[in-house]
Amino acid sequence: MARFEGALAMAASRAGLIPAAQAEVIQKTCARASFDAKRLVQAARRAGTLAIPFVKQLTEQVAEASPDAARHVHFGGTSQDVIDTATALCLKPACERLAELVVQLGDALAALARRYGTTPMAGRTLLQPAAPVPFGWKAAVWLSMLGRSYPRFRAAAASACVLQFGGASGTLSAFGDKGDEVASALAKELGLSRTVTWHSARDGFARLGAEMAILAGAAAKIARDVALLMQPEIGEASEVDAGGSSALPHKRNPTGCVFALEAASRAPALAATLLAQLTPEHERGLGQWQSQWLTLRELACAAASALAAMVEVVKGLRVSPHAMQANLERSQGLVFSEAVSLRLAKTLGKAAAHALTGKLCARALAENKPLLEVMRGDTEVARAIPAAELASLFDPKNCFGSAAAMIDRVLADWTISCGKAP
Amino acid sequence: MARFEGALAMAASRAGLIPAAQAEVIQKTCARASFDAKRLVQAARRAGTLAIPFVKQLTEQVAEASPDAARHVHFGGTSQDVIDTATALCLKPACERLAELVVQLGDALAALARRYGTTPMAGRTLLQPAAPVPFGWKAAVWLSMLGRSYPRFRAAAASACVLQFGGASGTLSAFGDKGDEVASALAKELGLSRTVTWHSARDGFARLGAEMAILAGAAAKIARDVALLMQPEIGEASEVDAGGSSALPHKRNPTGCVFALEAASRAPALAATLLAQLTPEHERGLGQWQSQWLTLRELACAAASALAAMVEVVKGLRVSPHAMQANLERSQGLVFSEAVSLRLAKTLGKAAAHALTGKLCARALAENKPLLEVMRGDTEVARAIPAAELASLFDPKNCFGSAAAMIDRVLADWTISCGKAP
Amino acid sequence: MARFEGALAMAASRAGLIPAAQAEVIQKTCARASFDAKRLVQAARRAGTLAIPFVKQLTEQVAEASPDAARHVHFGGTSQDVIDTATALCLKPACERLAELVVQLGDALAALARRYGTTPMAGRTLLQPAAPVPFGWKAAVWLSMLGRSYPRFRAAAASACVLQFGGASGTLSAFGDKGDEVASALAKELGLSRTVTWHSARDGFARLGAEMAILAGAAAKIARDVALLMQPEIGEASEVDAGGSSALPHKRNPTGCVFALEAASRAPALAATLLAQLTPEHERGLGQWQSQWLTLRELACAAASALAAMVEVVKGLRVSPHAMQANLERSQGLVFSEAVSLRLAKTLGKAAAHALTGKLCARALAENKPLLEVMRGDTEVARAIPAAELASLFDPKNCFGSAAAMIDRVLADWTISCGKAP
Amino acid sequence: MARFEGALAMAASRAGLIPAAQAEVIQKTCARASFDAKRLVQAARRAGTLAIPFVKQLTEQVAEASPDAARHVHFGGTSQDVIDTATALCLKPACERLAELVVQLGDALAALARRYGTTPMAGRTLLQPAAPVPFGWKAAVWLSMLGRSYPRFRAAAASACVLQFGGASGTLSAFGDKGDEVASALAKELGLSRTVTWHSARDGFARLGAEMAILAGAAAKIARDVALLMQPEIGEASEVDAGGSSALPHKRNPTGCVFALEAASRAPALAATLLAQLTPEHERGLGQWQSQWLTLRELACAAASALAAMVEVVKGLRVSPHAMQANLERSQGLVFSEAVSLRLAKTLGKAAAHALTGKLCARALAENKPLLEVMRGDTEVARAIPAAELASLFDPKNCFGSAAAMIDRVLADWTISCGKAP
Repeated sequence: MARFEGALAMAASRAGLIPAAQAEVIQKTCARASFDAKRLVQAARRAGTLAIPFVKQLTEQVAEASPDAARHVHFGGTSQDVIDTATALCLKPACERLAELVVQLGDALAALARRYGTTPMAGRTLLQPAAPVPFGWKAAVWLSMLGRSYPRFRAAAASACVLQFGGASGTLSAFGDKGDEVASALAKELGLSRTVTWHSARDGFARLGAEMAILAGAAAKIARDVALLMQPEIGEASEVDAGGSSALPHKRNPTGCVFALEAASRAPALAATLLAQLTPEHERGLGQWQSQWLTLRELACAAASALAAMVEVVKGLRVSPHAMQANLERSQGLVFSEAVSLRLAKTLGKAAAHALTGKLCARALAENKPLLEVMRGDTEVARAIPAAELASLFDPKNCFGSAAAMIDRVLADWTISCGKAP
Repeated sequence: MARFEGALAMAASRAGLIPAAQAEVIQKTCARASFDAKRLVQAARRAGTLAIPFVKQLTEQVAEASPDAARHVHFGGTSQDVIDTATALCLKPACERLAELVVQLGDALAALARRYGTTPMAGRTLLQPAAPVPFGWKAAVWLSMLGRSYPRFRAAAASACVLQFGGASGTLSAFGDKGDEVASALAKELGLSRTVTWHSARDGFARLGAEMAILAGAAAKIARDVALLMQPEIGEASEVDAGGSSALPHKRNPTGCVFALEAASRAPALAATLLAQLTPEHERGLGQWQSQWLTLRELACAAASALAAMVEVVKGLRVSPHAMQANLERSQGLVFSEAVSLRLAKTLGKAAAHALTGKLCARALAENKPLLEVMRGDTEVARAIPAAELASLFDPKNCFGSAAAMIDRVLADWTISCGKAP
Repeated sequence: MARFEGALAMAASRAGLIPAAQAEVIQKTCARASFDAKRLVQAARRAGTLAIPFVKQLTEQVAEASPDAARHVHFGGTSQDVIDTATALCLKPACERLAELVVQLGDALAALARRYGTTPMAGRTLLQPAAPVPFGWKAAVWLSMLGRSYPRFRAAAASACVLQFGGASGTLSAFGDKGDEVASALAKELGLSRTVTWHSARDGFARLGAEMAILAGAAAKIARDVALLMQPEIGEASEVDAGGSSALPHKRNPTGCVFALEAASRAPALAATLLAQLTPEHERGLGQWQSQWLTLRELACAAASALAAMVEVVKGLRVSPHAMQANLERSQGLVFSEAVSLRLAKTLGKAAAHALTGKLCARALAENKPLLEVMRGDTEVARAIPAAELASLFDPKNCFGSAAAMIDRVLADWTISCGKAP
Repeated sequence: MARFEGALAMAASRAGLIPAAQAEVIQKTCARASFDAKRLVQAARRAGTLAIPFVKQLTEQVAEASPDAARHVHFGGTSQDVIDTATALCLKPACERLAELVVQLGDALAALARRYGTTPMAGRTLLQPAAPVPFGWKAAVWLSMLGRSYPRFRAAAASACVLQFGGASGTLSAFGDKGDEVASALAKELGLSRTVTWHSARDGFARLGAEMAILAGAAAKIARDVALLMQPEIGEASEVDAGGSSALPHKRNPTGCVFALEAASRAPALAATLLAQLTPEHERGLGQWQSQWLTLRELACAAASALAAMVEVVKGLRVSPHAMQANLERSQGLVFSEAVSLRLAKTLGKAAAHALTGKLCARALAENKPLLEVMRGDTEVARAIPAAELASLFDPKNCFGSAAAMIDRVLADWTISCGKAP
């Protein structure tokens, strides 16, 4: 907020509205001003905005240096100009940090996608094993969300972190025909871009909030899966630095995942708050902009917490191809039922093949035998498929379909997304 | 859903996986298939998805034409492929209709902005009159939200209305090395673009939901203001076709505005539902994609209802420059307090000017006299400002600041946004 | 809505405001009135409310029977009276159905709690195995949510399903001093209780919405756990009637759980919509009551879907004490680490015991040996615990603590909650 | 958190599980313990919970006094026991403060309802003037929300502010058959009531959150209306201590109302977050309880801010019966259209009367004349109503209907609600 007031003085001075010497006094005072937080809060409660007591305390400090300069503090600005611009100034580095974290997470996922591109594991749909997939492909699907979301998040951040400067009613009424000049100078001082007054046009913050919630969700999707893979009954991946427990000495908790899931359970509602604040009354509303900085701060922290946690988790992820293979085998070959059914369909037609496969699977479950073994003993199967061909139906790699092409595409998109492409 | 199955058969046939003749039978049956909705719903309740009984009924109908063709219905697809792609196919024209409505609303606002670019009315902050603004500038601020939102909405729609096609676990496992070929052909058949499997990567729908909520909010912002301006005590604008009342014969209700405000009061939470569904388990989740079509339908309808209502309201808006002027005058000149204060500050300094202006305003209120008259009788004022200059402080146009430049900028941006610029 | 108008006529007639014969004509016409839905919707779009064209069509039908009676249709009522009361009339049986489902689900859980009160399974915290618990205790915790929620839901339903009757501004202005009499008669006709006008006091619907979301959440909590237990790698419980897959013949999907989780992923935001609609303007708002019936319908359906699905799942749940025991054993005894640590602490102090236990667990994991075996070979342990006592530390029942007492308490509370206690 | 640990030691000592002297050392250390917040936060990030590093630092401090006592710190508890109970301990006084504020606000509203029970003002529906109502009745409708909500809020608070104590998996496994005894003693120490373990049964917090959002909404409903009445064009009521503006010296802003509206625009989504966290996994979830204290704190502060602001606003409300009367008169008598229509209906029937009244109103508007005057010159009216009776149709008090009875009922209910009745 002090940066805004200092820059405003300089901008007004450049437009000839304030003597340069006095603007410099204001600028310097702003740079080292200190505030009595308790008094500020009490007075803000009465004023309905932090800006009024803030300007008052600042003016007092400027007055000590130069009573003349004090006349020009907050010249032509309004409370919301200060609050919104201060929010934009705080959001800007926060968004840069978020962008860095997205890149780190994406790069870590890309490494997984490359490294495990042909490592088979059970696909799992509705929490039930399904046709095998390469673990690297799973990582690529995780990455695909970041690849799509990164440029949108950056665009939303660029549109939201802009100067707010409109004065009393939004038209820069105090500046006559010099409004544009002052606004441009002010934007330049603060390193922000400009747009028209957005006192009551709050789509920028709403969109940024939604993108932050999407980032938190993208991190939490990875966390959901890692936490499930980390169940010791499954044990296919785990956090390298799993957390302990205050009660149970043996615990290896997915604490990184907890941070991401926690954040993502709060983010959607926070984003909804901003989406619900798009209808302020007339030129300045009652109860929207007053607290959006607070909601955005919570959202930015939630997204950052989720991303940072998953950067560590993914970078250090302990992957167990052995356990993946073991779980595939424990399934008695049932996860290959699609391959079996498709092969049978070539001879029997789809409906009969689906029915026969269902029967074979049920028998495998009931007798606790591998599906392959059950098939070897089945006469219908014998008529449909040469015995020598049976085992090949149970090769996970034959289920990978277009996985490799998809991994390549996601990696290529990611490279473009984060601007590393030629 | 039938379109998906028909197109899938054609695509598979093009890749040589299904005989062409049979694919055509499927395609034709799909084009005229009819379904027993009640049986579908009952069976879906048991199956956990509409897709399974749907495919069953479809297969029965194909079988009547050709039992051989029936073998190939839904070849290699999974329930979620059908549901998600059907959603995309429904969303696509819905989004096109929304885009049209945005353009209509934006054009209507642009016309207001041009027509009333110098018509003074009270700015209103926190529901209190503030420095005068041109009504056209107010319309331009409304338009600025649409100008920013239109390209983002279209981009989000383009990314969300894409083919879903992954098969059992998402890798197109049933198609061996022909997955890509089939997917491309299928996308072409359906007029959708392609991306990698997004069974459990739901950011596209979440982002589209947020943009729809923003559109509803942008319409509702206009509705909020129009409804307030339409209060008979203010009476500065009104719906041309105001609604009646079942109890009160004289009522002129802002019924168009009600539709927009109603929609915008539901949209944020619906968008939050989609943002909260970003973490499906593994390759296919429990309870996210199953109902996103429903949530998106509600959102699309809400946004369309809000936009359509405001297209009519804005196109037919009765604006009363006379009432605007009258309300400015009824304020006893208090809305010019900023101009007065700034002028006094030139002589007295900011703090003293602010204090003196406050005193003058209070006297005007207490004595129920125009501020100008109070100032004419005040000795302090007399010392600071030549009497001849006083009246000019009360000219609304002197408060317009950069309004005209902002209107120009918004109009230019709008022209670019909706692609009408060279 | 027709029931409201019919009852209103009868009530007004009882108060002497309408001739009895005409009231009867209205009442009878209402009982068999039919409406042109398409015309209604089109006109409602123009009128801003369904009530106006509805009353118009109804009046036309009454007029056919008696033009005199037609004069008195909708006498003294307002649009919102009709809409809100119709909502209350629809909600009442819906809430009764929900209450029945809660009781069925609670009773089914109580049966589980009783039957499996001493069946050991791994407790699981953060998805990691922890000290063993009885499965019946787990069911009792599920039940505890319903026990607390059932009476609150019923109270909320009773407060929300009440007559709305206030006329034009809410004071029953059309009825002079007979308002109370008519309102009481009307409430009696409709079987609803009365309160003061709540046109713009919407807490009743908001509270009911929150309770419905809690019911959906309580059902979904069970679904979350059942779906996790049903993972074949864990396999401790499963739906009796697990759903199939359109792609994978072997699948046994937790389809009942999907319905509950789906519903609970939409309910919180729908409840938030109602909580956000507590501030209608003055005596009748713009955009709140107009669609609350829609939001409440979605919520009621979601809650019913979740509860009904879980009634079936819980009633038919296949519980496998064998798999529970097997998973406890597969943990190599690590889930008994608390018992071990507490026993060691008696001799070594808490910190040293916690550290030693951690070391022992790590060794058990590394060497893939049962913790008991590791302890038998450890000299520090030998000094602290007599060898003969070691095995008793690995008895699940010794970890049950107060589980039995908690089960008893929950069962007793449930009996009281649903009014079965003496 | 320290209070929990101190009380736990005392409770365990009472059950004979810890030597009394050591328990006292722990209790005393807890009472004066100090923590290195920065270290706590860093370690919590790694541990996934604040509780683990907290217990560690506490244990170090106890160890300085007595290494023996240090063995028993946090005996049998788990992280979530500490966090949830600490939340309950913080919420309890917060809820008491909220209850006080509700009573203060309700009493202030009751005073308005009594004082202005017959002061006429325009009812306003859809922001358009409607049949007159007493201002006291309007206040009574405001009060009716508090009257219904107060007992529900207190009940929800009582159910939510309870001891959490379950140990590792929730069964109090560390305490053998002494769990109940320790838990009861612990509850007594802390002044909290007991229930069964609710580690993963989070309905209590969800319900309390919803009730807090309703309180914020009830306050904001008043704020919405006061801010609208305070528009200078209406001017029927205003805050006594209206806020100033940093740009406009004359402004009288509804700053109290802003606080209430701001809070109510955030509360619904915060409540939704808690409603969405009802499905933690198994015995302890990933990402729900970890941050509910934070969400509840935001909600409690929002509700308190809203209520406290409105206590001041309502207590000091400047009501202007004069302006209310003037606005009624400015409406040219149109707000009496219902009375006119009802009187005409006695002779002409409802439909004709509604049509004629509509015509008269349109003429009054077009000619800018009072409706009464228009009616005096109308021949149809002359035939239907004796001239002498006409004026009486324009007496606001004739529109009050059941307003007085409703005020009485609300006041009586309020007295019962807040326990002041005999």
